[in-house]
Amino acid sequence: MLSTLIKGGTVVTATDTYAADVVIINDKIAAIFGPEASPPGPWDITIDAVGKFVMPGGIDVHTHLDMPFGGTTASDDFESGTRAAAHGGTTCIVDFAIQPKNNGGHGSLRSGLDAWHRKAEGKAAIDYAFHMIMTDVTDDTIAEMGRVVSEGVTSFKVFMAYPGALLVDDGQIFRTMQRSAELGALICVHAENGFPIDILVEEAIAKGHTAPVYHGLTRPEIAEAEATHRAICLAEMANAPVYIVHLSAERSLDEVVRARDRGLPVFAETCPQYLFLSDDDLARPDFEGAKYVCSPPLRPRHMQEDLWRGLRTGNLQVVSTDHCPFNQKGQKEMGKNNFAKIPNGLPGVETRLSLLWNSGVRQGRISKNRFVEITSTAPAKIFGLYPKKGTIAVGADADLLIWDGDKRHTLNHANLHMRVDYSPYEGVEVMGAPSHVISRGKLVVDHGQYIGKKGDGQFVKRATFSYI
Amino acid sequence: MLSTLIKGGTVVTATDTYAADVVIINDKIAAIFGPEASPPGPWDITIDAVGKFVMPGGIDVHTHLDMPFGGTTASDDFESGTRAAAHGGTTCIVDFAIQPKNNGGHGSLRSGLDAWHRKAEGKAAIDYAFHMIMTDVTDDTIAEMGRVVSEGVTSFKVFMAYPGALLVDDGQIFRTMQRSAELGALICVHAENGFPIDILVEEAIAKGHTAPVYHGLTRPEIAEAEATHRAICLAEMANAPVYIVHLSAERSLDEVVRARDRGLPVFAETCPQYLFLSDDDLARPDFEGAKYVCSPPLRPRHMQEDLWRGLRTGNLQVVSTDHCPFNQKGQKEMGKNNFAKIPNGLPGVETRLSLLWNSGVRQGRISKNRFVEITSTAPAKIFGLYPKKGTIAVGADADLLIWDGDKRHTLNHANLHMRVDYSPYEGVEVMGAPSHVISRGKLVVDHGQYIGKKGDGQFVKRATFSYI
Amino acid sequence: MLSTLIKGGTVVTATDTYAADVVIINDKIAAIFGPEASPPGPWDITIDAVGKFVMPGGIDVHTHLDMPFGGTTASDDFESGTRAAAHGGTTCIVDFAIQPKNNGGHGSLRSGLDAWHRKAEGKAAIDYAFHMIMTDVTDDTIAEMGRVVSEGVTSFKVFMAYPGALLVDDGQIFRTMQRSAELGALICVHAENGFPIDILVEEAIAKGHTAPVYHGLTRPEIAEAEATHRAICLAEMANAPVYIVHLSAERSLDEVVRARDRGLPVFAETCPQYLFLSDDDLARPDFEGAKYVCSPPLRPRHMQEDLWRGLRTGNLQVVSTDHCPFNQKGQKEMGKNNFAKIPNGLPGVETRLSLLWNSGVRQGRISKNRFVEITSTAPAKIFGLYPKKGTIAVGADADLLIWDGDKRHTLNHANLHMRVDYSPYEGVEVMGAPSHVISRGKLVVDHGQYIGKKGDGQFVKRATFSYI
Amino acid sequence: MLSTLIKGGTVVTATDTYAADVVIINDKIAAIFGPEASPPGPWDITIDAVGKFVMPGGIDVHTHLDMPFGGTTASDDFESGTRAAAHGGTTCIVDFAIQPKNNGGHGSLRSGLDAWHRKAEGKAAIDYAFHMIMTDVTDDTIAEMGRVVSEGVTSFKVFMAYPGALLVDDGQIFRTMQRSAELGALICVHAENGFPIDILVEEAIAKGHTAPVYHGLTRPEIAEAEATHRAICLAEMANAPVYIVHLSAERSLDEVVRARDRGLPVFAETCPQYLFLSDDDLARPDFEGAKYVCSPPLRPRHMQEDLWRGLRTGNLQVVSTDHCPFNQKGQKEMGKNNFAKIPNGLPGVETRLSLLWNSGVRQGRISKNRFVEITSTAPAKIFGLYPKKGTIAVGADADLLIWDGDKRHTLNHANLHMRVDYSPYEGVEVMGAPSHVISRGKLVVDHGQYIGKKGDGQFVKRATFSYI
Repeated sequence: MLSTLIKGGTVVTATDTYAADVVIINDKIAAIFGPEASPPGPWDITIDAVGKFVMPGGIDVHTHLDMPFGGTTASDDFESGTRAAAHGGTTCIVDFAIQPKNNGGHGSLRSGLDAWHRKAEGKAAIDYAFHMIMTDVTDDTIAEMGRVVSEGVTSFKVFMAYPGALLVDDGQIFRTMQRSAELGALICVHAENGFPIDILVEEAIAKGHTAPVYHGLTRPEIAEAEATHRAICLAEMANAPVYIVHLSAERSLDEVVRARDRGLPVFAETCPQYLFLSDDDLARPDFEGAKYVCSPPLRPRHMQEDLWRGLRTGNLQVVSTDHCPFNQKGQKEMGKNNFAKIPNGLPGVETRLSLLWNSGVRQGRISKNRFVEITSTAPAKIFGLYPKKGTIAVGADADLLIWDGDKRHTLNHANLHMRVDYSPYEGVEVMGAPSHVISRGKLVVDHGQYIGKKGDGQFVKRATFSYI
Repeated sequence: MLSTLIKGGTVVTATDTYAADVVIINDKIAAIFGPEASPPGPWDITIDAVGKFVMPGGIDVHTHLDMPFGGTTASDDFESGTRAAAHGGTTCIVDFAIQPKNNGGHGSLRSGLDAWHRKAEGKAAIDYAFHMIMTDVTDDTIAEMGRVVSEGVTSFKVFMAYPGALLVDDGQIFRTMQRSAELGALICVHAENGFPIDILVEEAIAKGHTAPVYHGLTRPEIAEAEATHRAICLAEMANAPVYIVHLSAERSLDEVVRARDRGLPVFAETCPQYLFLSDDDLARPDFEGAKYVCSPPLRPRHMQEDLWRGLRTGNLQVVSTDHCPFNQKGQKEMGKNNFAKIPNGLPGVETRLSLLWNSGVRQGRISKNRFVEITSTAPAKIFGLYPKKGTIAVGADADLLIWDGDKRHTLNHANLHMRVDYSPYEGVEVMGAPSHVISRGKLVVDHGQYIGKKGDGQFVKRATFSYI
Repeated sequence: MLSTLIKGGTVVTATDTYAADVVIINDKIAAIFGPEASPPGPWDITIDAVGKFVMPGGIDVHTHLDMPFGGTTASDDFESGTRAAAHGGTTCIVDFAIQPKNNGGHGSLRSGLDAWHRKAEGKAAIDYAFHMIMTDVTDDTIAEMGRVVSEGVTSFKVFMAYPGALLVDDGQIFRTMQRSAELGALICVHAENGFPIDILVEEAIAKGHTAPVYHGLTRPEIAEAEATHRAICLAEMANAPVYIVHLSAERSLDEVVRARDRGLPVFAETCPQYLFLSDDDLARPDFEGAKYVCSPPLRPRHMQEDLWRGLRTGNLQVVSTDHCPFNQKGQKEMGKNNFAKIPNGLPGVETRLSLLWNSGVRQGRISKNRFVEITSTAPAKIFGLYPKKGTIAVGADADLLIWDGDKRHTLNHANLHMRVDYSPYEGVEVMGAPSHVISRGKLVVDHGQYIGKKGDGQFVKRATFSYI
Repeated sequence: MLSTLIKGGTVVTATDTYAADVVIINDKIAAIFGPEASPPGPWDITIDAVGKFVMPGGIDVHTHLDMPFGGTTASDDFESGTRAAAHGGTTCIVDFAIQPKNNGGHGSLRSGLDAWHRKAEGKAAIDYAFHMIMTDVTDDTIAEMGRVVSEGVTSFKVFMAYPGALLVDDGQIFRTMQRSAELGALICVHAENGFPIDILVEEAIAKGHTAPVYHGLTRPEIAEAEATHRAICLAEMANAPVYIVHLSAERSLDEVVRARDRGLPVFAETCPQYLFLSDDDLARPDFEGAKYVCSPPLRPRHMQEDLWRGLRTGNLQVVSTDHCPFNQKGQKEMGKNNFAKIPNGLPGVETRLSLLWNSGVRQGRISKNRFVEITSTAPAKIFGLYPKKGTIAVGADADLLIWDGDKRHTLNHANLHMRVDYSPYEGVEVMGAPSHVISRGKLVVDHGQYIGKKGDGQFVKRATFSYI
């Protein structure tokens, strides 16, 4: 038995803020003591949290580690990526396993899931779970969905973008939603209408518009808003919940708001890149814009406030990262002469909490409790990680942060731990960082230093969807 | 020192649900133990909560005890009303003190507040606080607002209804909102446009339409929707938050939804009578309809689902009672020949939690956590009672319920404890009731029996508004 | 030179109502005289219009004559169909030519257009024009669009329904819209998402749900609303106008309203079947429901008032018929054991004006001017027939009705002139019918009797889109 | 008998555009000839309209001639004002008669109407009608409304602004609406919530914020939007149509759009000052801003496009002028040290058509037909002047313009004919002006020169409201 006392901190949950001592026994939160009581002890470990916040560890439900994309592979694998996550205060990720394509046909969900288990096993610094990307929907894969869910992979992702590659048609999406409604699974949708986008891309290239800025200009807001509305309609027809990934734009948010006001079980996440960066970055000269190529693309700056509004009103429930790093050198450069060949994706798994704390909490846009909710509690509840994870309550996994809200530091790739040769936030000064990170009771970051080892993190079977 | 252990229950907060033992020392929650730890003891009192829920006590932010109205007085005073509240699981109320009218002029806020302190002092079974109704807005009363706030009365109510009596004009409302924005106070609005209503009432009476059903027909939904929108606009102009009391209708909700989607700090409560009763009840024959006369009036049945939708989406934050009982005999009867003379109001302080649990939680409309949020946590936060009250966290007041979610009972006025000769829910069978109620650490209801005494309850100074 | 005087009537246009004598010289409206002037004469023909309305002839922009569908052919050809139209007061139709499928591939627009010219030539009783249905979109057909437009076929139709048959994907639709924006052409969209519909149909048949009523239940309102929104978004991206055909449902209308309120050039028509019939008709026993099978399907009765509202507010601009008749015997019967095999379509080209006059004008839902606008002027303007057709103004084609607004008659297939063995309105009594119909100056219906001959009607080259 | 031929022009109505010769006999339009016919003659007068447009004369339904305001009087009386109107192409105005205040009480509608008849009689260059402003609503004035309507004054105006002066409360407004619904009259509303505005004004002055720019800053958009919504709600409750005068702002338009989408008979006008000027003008230095003081105030420039959108979509039906001129010298100067004392109002009756033609038609925002509709036909229909006025149809009053769409001229007060020492559009070059203006058959402007005489214009009794 290992006992740990976190002493003198201020506990912050999605609802509450209170002074307390928190006791961990082995991997669970065991007791919480207020000023009227004193924890007896002795303790194997005592952590001083005076002047700091004790919060549930971050949960990042959108990462792509070790992912092949357009002839290259995301530069972080499960070892480097999860260690960077831990550094940033994230104690659990949900990564996307992909149904493979084999020789022009499609492989099984099983083979895709197995591949991802192999990628992760024994490498992770923190706990991890999987969504399953469906690249083909047939009677066979519909049948497989049940088996996948029974193994704790309780959400699936489909693409409305990338025709000829990842896109599945509306009938296929509808079938996955019907099946999800039966299984208690949740369908996540990449909502951009890839058909007109691909035509705009082709037209741009034909005109010699090959620079990174055209990546944004060929993926207009309305293509995302349309797909968002369509995904919601399909889900409503299937009587299923739906989760919109990486929502980036004002009009997409409008569609989510409309649906939620009607009481539909529609959920959406945004990502830090949409809150902090803009299409101005895509337009940076000298191919610097390539560092900012992701899909959906960065939007006009004024939409950042729309997304903050969505986070504040509850119409957006989650901030995840869509962490999918590629080096500028050797990877992003593949699209030097054609923006369409730039691998899509940005690094972010490590910087999410600091950025949100700094600009969200410190600048008064959201409360501390809402910070915890959007980074940990809501994703845990939506994706079946709760009540094991996502909160501070006795009986829950001891995935905890000791958060120093006043810690001032500067983001740059040299100091960060993601395996990528740039940071989109290079030189940005922020306040807020974890001094300690505890993963299932084990201290893995101590005064900012990683002291864990690979394989600390385990696969987490997730429960089915039951959120209201 | 008094120590109490609540053993074996399932704690429910606005966010979390977990098995835990809860320790109370004196009047505070002192520690919470999960399955991995065992509370040491010994304890002065041990309450067995196995199979039951441990929840924060109900907070009812809209009651009218001992209130004069139209030549009579609400039949519950602070003694009977708060005892009935305790019976029903409510451990704190916020009642409305009224700025008086003297000899045709208006008295001071001070005199009104003093009067209400006298009504309550030494009588209450549970803790209580006050809002202040402003019936006149002058330079003097604007100045008084600051003093009232400093005494812990941090919210004010104004009326858009009842011209010539309680109504203050839009300029006066605007001034209270401007002042509130400075003070951190919150303006509550009775949002019905009384001008056209009074004309419709006069026209109805002139046509001999004197029965209770005309109370509803002369106060149309749109008069409420209009005033709701206007209150929101005035608050937006004053850069102040606003709280709409007793929202009853679909279109009023639409206005709140519009405002909240824009990110405005607009809050609203509904009441059980709008969720469970309808204009059919107002139309009951033989003057039975009089028992259902309140303002805003009961609405068509189909709007009940709109209100539930609002509670589920978060667009409505609170369910309070607008408890304002009058006996059918001798009081409601005053309007036998003229519905406009029926005292407005329904009893409800005791039945709120059981009704909401039964139809909300058991019938799947809202989760247990949302139940706690709308009955306790959200009103506590909005009205500055939090973090003392409204949650289960170490350091908070030990205002707790041991809730038996399966307890089956039938509502009727003979079994209930409000001082009124009928129940609007007479004969309705519901499941869910408190087996024990603890008020600031003191057990006041034990296995359903009231064991407290008058004066247990104290006045609570509330903090200013800081909710985001 | 042939001169005709229409004497003593009340002229009704989309804007004006006034007493006037109208003079026709040959095929044109030549002069209009008010009470202060008297037309000189002599006249070859004088028609007494005292007590009657003189209105522009009806224009029906959605007919399917001689159209192959599911192994059979619409029962009216251009001879019978246009004669029936004339009987009902319609003096111009726009029918749909179809790009053919040949041996598994797709034919050219040219071959489709030629085929339709052959179907129509020498047969029509009234003037006619064509839209072009695109069943495949390739570089070739995109190039052909320009040639087709230059021949006076200035609108194209694409299907979001019927995957594997008529459906073209969103990229193809987008390309037709981009090209239309260049050409001044207009894209018409059948807006139902055929993918989920086809799955619902398959599931219904698999469950033995084969009766006509399941036609409606497998094509839910939301599938139409989704597609309507998507069509509008694609058009907005292409910076092109768009026209939604046969809009049937409340939520589809909501999408059109949203778009129009934003100022987008979005247009929509509804049809009499959606104004006068409902899903109750689809549920008629003994396979009677088959008579009411069309797509989109008939909707719940309450939506009729939404469509009338749309017509009144201007959010719907046109009432066309989607005339596509099939005999119950031998044709509709093909789906006796499988609703999916019932040919889709209803007869209606003859009854449109009487139904709309009776329920629209006489029952006070729309003015006489709005009646003229939605049946003649607006379709003429939207589809480039104006100013030749669609109004009463000097210089315009003399396509005119002498309308007897008080004529009482009963609709039944025996008295009507469409070549089909039933009427969806069998036995319905209406008021309003043309006593005389003039087609390009020639009297073709005289006191209700058809006196024209086949071949009177000519192909009309339409102008490009220029409506604001 | 006087006969006039307008030869060779292009007739433009709200619906149609066609080449025609127009014959006038005495004061009426008598016949219209197209290319196939030739008007016989001889004619007393022939006007060459080749290359020009023949349009219905402008109708300006919002003018304040000879109106007392804040201790001074609008600088145009009925002689100068109507002559300027004729110069600009307007052939009919509807001015506002005001119920007087006498010795602290209110006078009768009768006395106010008589006063306005005296102001106008024998002076007007063109026809005129009256609305009636109600400054007090009592049983007596409600009774008078019927008599006023029977004399052809079929619309009334009420103020939500100016408490203590013109404002009537919501109950009074509601009563006028109820009465209007009975009479077929129309209530026009000045929709600004004067209560918070007056507080903001008082606060501004107290802070020394006395410059004209504070006029705008103390009358925020939201005060107008709120009142617009309230006026609509009161009208809906009274089952009456309503007309919002001088709508100036985006959010007010939103409220009108919401109502119209629901099918309510809600109408609204905007004015050229809101389409062409902005709050930048109010901020001009050296008290120049005073020239731009009117209520509602000029708004941020971006709202101009919202208003144009409203005109294009039909959500705004009318452009009137709110012509209410005051000289900068001696009048506007009264507010030199206090913006609240600047007389409210701008000159505009002469420049409306040229401005709208130039920026609306020539710049492609609206069609010629829509130009005619918003300046003449729609106001005529809404206010019961139609079918006498507002269109070109045989039998209608010969109120006509020969409009030279290419006429280039510069607006400045020296060249214009309004009696005021500045123009808000000083130096603006526009294209479009009437070459000839005909008022009830009489040529009053010939090649731009006024040739009429005072008293040509007569009072017009208007019909009751019957617009759908």
